[in-house]
Amino acid sequence: MIKVGIYGGSGYTGQELLRLLLGHPEARVVAATSRRFAGVPVSEVYPAFSGRTDLVYTDDSPETVAGFADFIFLALPHGVSMGMAPIFIRAGRKVVDLSADFRIRDAAAYEAWYGRHTAAEMLGEAVYGLPELYRDEIRQARLTANPGCYPTSIILGLAPVLRSRWVDPASVIADSKSGASGAGREPQIASLYCEVDGGFKAYKVGNHRHTPEIEQELGLLAGREMKISFTPHLLPVKRGILSTIYAKMEKDVSAEEAVVLYREFYREEPFVRVCPAGRFPDLSSVVGSNFCDIGVTVDKRTGRLIIVSVIDNLIKGASGQAIQNMNLMSGFPEETGLPLVALYP
Amino acid sequence: MIKVGIYGGSGYTGQELLRLLLGHPEARVVAATSRRFAGVPVSEVYPAFSGRTDLVYTDDSPETVAGFADFIFLALPHGVSMGMAPIFIRAGRKVVDLSADFRIRDAAAYEAWYGRHTAAEMLGEAVYGLPELYRDEIRQARLTANPGCYPTSIILGLAPVLRSRWVDPASVIADSKSGASGAGREPQIASLYCEVDGGFKAYKVGNHRHTPEIEQELGLLAGREMKISFTPHLLPVKRGILSTIYAKMEKDVSAEEAVVLYREFYREEPFVRVCPAGRFPDLSSVVGSNFCDIGVTVDKRTGRLIIVSVIDNLIKGASGQAIQNMNLMSGFPEETGLPLVALYP
Amino acid sequence: MIKVGIYGGSGYTGQELLRLLLGHPEARVVAATSRRFAGVPVSEVYPAFSGRTDLVYTDDSPETVAGFADFIFLALPHGVSMGMAPIFIRAGRKVVDLSADFRIRDAAAYEAWYGRHTAAEMLGEAVYGLPELYRDEIRQARLTANPGCYPTSIILGLAPVLRSRWVDPASVIADSKSGASGAGREPQIASLYCEVDGGFKAYKVGNHRHTPEIEQELGLLAGREMKISFTPHLLPVKRGILSTIYAKMEKDVSAEEAVVLYREFYREEPFVRVCPAGRFPDLSSVVGSNFCDIGVTVDKRTGRLIIVSVIDNLIKGASGQAIQNMNLMSGFPEETGLPLVALYP
Amino acid sequence: MIKVGIYGGSGYTGQELLRLLLGHPEARVVAATSRRFAGVPVSEVYPAFSGRTDLVYTDDSPETVAGFADFIFLALPHGVSMGMAPIFIRAGRKVVDLSADFRIRDAAAYEAWYGRHTAAEMLGEAVYGLPELYRDEIRQARLTANPGCYPTSIILGLAPVLRSRWVDPASVIADSKSGASGAGREPQIASLYCEVDGGFKAYKVGNHRHTPEIEQELGLLAGREMKISFTPHLLPVKRGILSTIYAKMEKDVSAEEAVVLYREFYREEPFVRVCPAGRFPDLSSVVGSNFCDIGVTVDKRTGRLIIVSVIDNLIKGASGQAIQNMNLMSGFPEETGLPLVALYP
Repeated sequence: MIKVGIYGGSGYTGQELLRLLLGHPEARVVAATSRRFAGVPVSEVYPAFSGRTDLVYTDDSPETVAGFADFIFLALPHGVSMGMAPIFIRAGRKVVDLSADFRIRDAAAYEAWYGRHTAAEMLGEAVYGLPELYRDEIRQARLTANPGCYPTSIILGLAPVLRSRWVDPASVIADSKSGASGAGREPQIASLYCEVDGGFKAYKVGNHRHTPEIEQELGLLAGREMKISFTPHLLPVKRGILSTIYAKMEKDVSAEEAVVLYREFYREEPFVRVCPAGRFPDLSSVVGSNFCDIGVTVDKRTGRLIIVSVIDNLIKGASGQAIQNMNLMSGFPEETGLPLVALYP
Repeated sequence: MIKVGIYGGSGYTGQELLRLLLGHPEARVVAATSRRFAGVPVSEVYPAFSGRTDLVYTDDSPETVAGFADFIFLALPHGVSMGMAPIFIRAGRKVVDLSADFRIRDAAAYEAWYGRHTAAEMLGEAVYGLPELYRDEIRQARLTANPGCYPTSIILGLAPVLRSRWVDPASVIADSKSGASGAGREPQIASLYCEVDGGFKAYKVGNHRHTPEIEQELGLLAGREMKISFTPHLLPVKRGILSTIYAKMEKDVSAEEAVVLYREFYREEPFVRVCPAGRFPDLSSVVGSNFCDIGVTVDKRTGRLIIVSVIDNLIKGASGQAIQNMNLMSGFPEETGLPLVALYP
Repeated sequence: MIKVGIYGGSGYTGQELLRLLLGHPEARVVAATSRRFAGVPVSEVYPAFSGRTDLVYTDDSPETVAGFADFIFLALPHGVSMGMAPIFIRAGRKVVDLSADFRIRDAAAYEAWYGRHTAAEMLGEAVYGLPELYRDEIRQARLTANPGCYPTSIILGLAPVLRSRWVDPASVIADSKSGASGAGREPQIASLYCEVDGGFKAYKVGNHRHTPEIEQELGLLAGREMKISFTPHLLPVKRGILSTIYAKMEKDVSAEEAVVLYREFYREEPFVRVCPAGRFPDLSSVVGSNFCDIGVTVDKRTGRLIIVSVIDNLIKGASGQAIQNMNLMSGFPEETGLPLVALYP
Repeated sequence: MIKVGIYGGSGYTGQELLRLLLGHPEARVVAATSRRFAGVPVSEVYPAFSGRTDLVYTDDSPETVAGFADFIFLALPHGVSMGMAPIFIRAGRKVVDLSADFRIRDAAAYEAWYGRHTAAEMLGEAVYGLPELYRDEIRQARLTANPGCYPTSIILGLAPVLRSRWVDPASVIADSKSGASGAGREPQIASLYCEVDGGFKAYKVGNHRHTPEIEQELGLLAGREMKISFTPHLLPVKRGILSTIYAKMEKDVSAEEAVVLYREFYREEPFVRVCPAGRFPDLSSVVGSNFCDIGVTVDKRTGRLIIVSVIDNLIKGASGQAIQNMNLMSGFPEETGLPLVALYP
């Protein structure tokens, strides 16, 4: 049983960590911090927790939390995590950071998209926390950079064909759609029910900050630098990301052969499911679970591979994957606490 | 470990039973029947189950299922269960019936609202499966009649004040609102997305079939016959029931005293939570869990008690409560497999 | 053709006035004010208006607007309108105020629920702008107090039976449900998509500020002071209010007779529709229109009358009714600009 | 004033025609047919029409309807229209057909995707009813084939750059998302509220029947045969289509230059609006209106043009465009009856 601290515990990913960890047999949450709600019971901010936890949000310093927690999740905004992570690492704690601060290996690239990096010296040691690609490294890591939600769906969707050199890396387009929880719990007009319900729109077309992270990992898979078109959209649902991905085929294969490639690639993976040929996943089948479901086909008419991948942005796209990483870093079976089936309907 | 059969396994309550039982450490589902989908894997009808179960729907007879299952859930339409339950009971199996067939103690009352009863001789032995009121009887039962979704929310909302004689039984009004999953998975125009989304309506005003069940149980609590006004409404959500209940006070108490009464009444209950005075529950806090959350206040201006109770209609209102009953009937700790926190947001 | 000014034009009711007035053949909007968006084109704040109006929000003083507009809509928060209305009236302009400031005839009652009233001397002249009850007075009015959204649905639902003395005034309960646009466009956590979608809750139970307005008008209809139980709920829809109203019968009539009474009472009304006996209205049938639809039945078992009334809270509950009042005050046919059919599906 | 018949009037597009035509000053609906609802008042099937029309659905033969209607809308399934249109044309009536039966100029192409064509002799005379491209031909037409909803959004989105030869025709990808009303009002599991709400999925990937229609018109614009990748998705909204379109630039231009091209191309168009550079349209801005809103940008990093276009699938994608065509064919001003602003929020 390890003692877990959640630094930044009152946002949607923070409370999702707490919810999932309540069902984890090897971990116990001993601290959840929140500046805004310091002193307030979690069950008052989120009544769903009433009767399930007596935890009270605190405003404890990282030094204090490091004093009694073994494992730390940083659920903080970009730019804040980089100031906290070194404190926990120095104190000998293991850290999964859910922000973007340690995802980009190249400090200059980070700074081009996000702003100044004040802990660039730790970028070398941080491991990109996508277990399907970096399981062994994560097992050894002290600091894991939990992937972004969009990147998780896109990288898992493309890994088999990029590594197999089946597609032209210059041709990749990712048309992604995310639920509203991706925007967090900050009150803003664009996130109001009346603005989101019944609507749908693209945003940050051609300039979303997840782009360098996606390109970094796709480039490593393809063995060459990559530039992709990535268009995020805001879906009128609470949870879930669906990415529709297009790439020009460089090999003449059938849809069935593509499915075989994907099934082979993910054969041992507990959280990736590949649909039968001709089938495509629905968000509904993964919302509430840690699964990434992938459908793939070949459009012979146009010579393109079309891939659809879906995840729950708060679980496989954030808190569930963070716990998967914690399991690996702590020597627990990887699925511990995560044997979830989507809540359907 | 008991072997469980789900008779009628392809509707929303059937698949919810299956989902919840996958997380139950003492039960294993060995059969799920479906006329429509016989021979089809569950994971094909509901892709959310892919990788979690290899179960295939069958069209096995009750006699066959009784041959290899220890415990049976009947998730069948009203009028069908009454033909099946006796077969399983005779074979020595325990049964939780999720239909209305064994909820009404008086066969004549059943027939007035539902139609002919062909197994009236079993009504005497069936136990009404609301653990908060009949825990000891359920422990001894062979046949438990799982309560209706609306009745669960209304009876739990009123039990403390009716038993305490705080309100006038003739004054009770229950204004209830249910999500669309309550209508099941049968394709019909009124259940289409385009008809439900953005809409809201009352239906079966003054003549919903849950009325006799509600009145039977409230009357037993009040110690006298009761007639209530019960108005169901269709909410544009997938899951959840919220009942707003009004009753004339016959005792001059404060909201705080009412909260104390409710907390005392439900002190030992694992699945009923009472809000602090001045607070009322949101559906969102229970959807995905087996909780019933209750808020209560006193409107001094009008001398009325106002109670709001919420449940997930597919869990505490159906499949979760059915498992709670199975736990009691099988000697398992009552919360086994049900330590759920609402999926939020 | 009259020149119209909208004072407070960037909220949901302000933009709805603008939308509806674009289709009004006798009115032209010449000013829409907004502190927040002064200098910004309406079509930038609300792109739906692109190509339909060149209007730019201004921060003009009421004196300035009074200089070039004939008719003023005040779409301002409670407490602000009372400072503006006298300026426009003194300048000889006619005013429809959409706030609560002039709805309560008794200044003391206003102050008990809202706070200090600084223009109490005008309460005597303000007319309550419910055309179905005060058509002749509105025709003569300089200052009309546009009714609240909840009150509109409840008063129209009860007027026929209260005036006919069919029900016990002390027995009235109004269980009302409103869409999220009723909360306005201010960014706040409780109005976020992720907090509202899939949820449902009661709020301000027993203490909503619309209570005195409802009781004032119901009391006038009943000919005696009234206290009602009024419980508002937040629906996961953008627009619409549905009120389910309960009252004890004091006369033994059938559902059919009740329908006849309602049809008689509203026979000449262009915007009230009464459902056939046994039918109840759906929000969907009025959203996008100025209609109030009413269904009524008699529950013989309990001796109660049950009434369901629905409106679009932004139209009949606010901006549509305001234009209906403008038509009356300006001598236009009452339906001018309002011949709308609900947008369905 | 012309007399209009709607053949197939009880589906979503049929009732939308009726709703829009109630606000049309030059047209009066004299017949709406429905096999299912023959003899039933429209206002009973769709209570939103109560008080607005006394029309009753009939099962009249086309010959009968041709006897008293001047102008016919065929809102029938594919394959049925082709049997009806010739009857009306022979009787000297003008027809707008909302099915796919007369959209594909090449009978062989039609038959490859839809099945046998029994009125191929009329394909030569039918005009493709996209006024932005074929206004003059529509003015002269007796039979107009109203475009599909997806094709409308994609063709309008691409017309300026294809005609200007700015992009590589072989590179075009259209990732489209449609609301649930596109599936019509037939009861089927996949269209149930519980299956659609909270979900999102791609369907008919690489084989949707709108593909040949889209490619026919894009090819004519580009001056060469075209094959595109077209992926439809089902959005959890009632109305609206958003298409995100990608194409490889063959000319080095800026986003601003692209906006200028689009604004120039659509300068005289009453129903196409082009967003300022850097802005993209939201479904919410067009739902309830006949507008097509288009945003366009250039992704310099990848050399791609990215276009987002939105329409209301039931209005500009069906019934509104049909009325626009009726206006052209009847000599009315093109905007007659269609000066709508989106219903927002």
